[in-house]
Amino acid sequence: METLAKTVNGFDQEAIAGVVAALQTNPEIGNFELRATNQWIDGAHNRSYVQDFYGAGQEDTSRTVPFIYDNDEPPVLLGTNKGANPGEVLLHGLLGCMTTAMVLLAAARGIKIGAVSSRVEGDIDIKGFLGMAPHGVKGFQQIRVTFDIEGVDEAQKEELLTLAKQSPLYNSLIHPMDVQVALKE
Amino acid sequence: METLAKTVNGFDQEAIAGVVAALQTNPEIGNFELRATNQWIDGAHNRSYVQDFYGAGQEDTSRTVPFIYDNDEPPVLLGTNKGANPGEVLLHGLLGCMTTAMVLLAAARGIKIGAVSSRVEGDIDIKGFLGMAPHGVKGFQQIRVTFDIEGVDEAQKEELLTLAKQSPLYNSLIHPMDVQVALKE
Repeated sequence: METLAKTVNGFDQEAIAGVVAALQTNPEIGNFELRATNQWIDGAHNRSYVQDFYGAGQEDTSRTVPFIYDNDEPPVLLGTNKGANPGEVLLHGLLGCMTTAMVLLAAARGIKIGAVSSRVEGDIDIKGFLGMAPHGVKGFQQIRVTFDIEGVDEAQKEELLTLAKQSPLYNSLIHPMDVQVALKE
Repeated sequence: METLAKTVNGFDQEAIAGVVAALQTNPEIGNFELRATNQWIDGAHNRSYVQDFYGAGQEDTSRTVPFIYDNDEPPVLLGTNKGANPGEVLLHGLLGCMTTAMVLLAAARGIKIGAVSSRVEGDIDIKGFLGMAPHGVKGFQQIRVTFDIEGVDEAQKEELLTLAKQSPLYNSLIHPMDVQVALKE
């Protein structure tokens, strides 16, 4: 008897189950190395390239050209708005990561979601960056994420927030991260 | 007598000095609220919008249209490559932020840089996200940034790494962050 694949939230439930089964058999295929490169252009304008990564036991070749993203600053921060500023880039990635965590883990549980939108605000004092802040905080002081979820009941909404908090980016922010910085040899 | 503006690394040194002087007079203008919104599309594909922010004592209006960025996953992570994945987005923002911190703070000190390129690698175990990791780590385990800097001597390269570490994103990662998550009321 054939089994029809069941798609929930845009994910094939059998594909999710297949990933979980593969990880149970070969835990090491869960280890990914994500990468980016960047080239300074001028002033606050620089450009990132994202293409290759290692994961699932091999170098990925699914992208034939790189994703190219520009960083810049607005005029009030001495730039020319050729791209979002890096703080905003972090916030955009955070919303994307929490959203994907939510809808993918919900699909694995069979929770069908109608719609998800989100908003994030991050407080930052640029005096920290310039070494002028009495409190000494150089990064974000607080980040606030708000989700608007449709098509599920109130109890499910709370469960979905819990799933969103499985997000790798969320966890990379709330815990101290080991970031090594070096000159190219 | 007229003073000619001196541009270093693409930044007007007088403009930097002007920002510092303004912050000394009115420290509260250093407080920024950065923002993004996001809309889930389907599966691992969602879209972020970045436009307005509060800073320098007012709502910024310098951007007449939003920056639009898509998040997705590669096929091996059940997506269709419509954009970099959120972990890669974080890495791209980190390189951009550390580069801008370096070249801007160097300009303030009169250090002229010839060229900067950088590369970042981030280790992540997707079993963490799926709740299957014995170590329990859901975010990046380690991030490694390498800078290639031209046009300065070796001692200045080390000083420039120190300046890059003033980056708000770098500091947001190495310290635990307060991230509040809620449903829209």
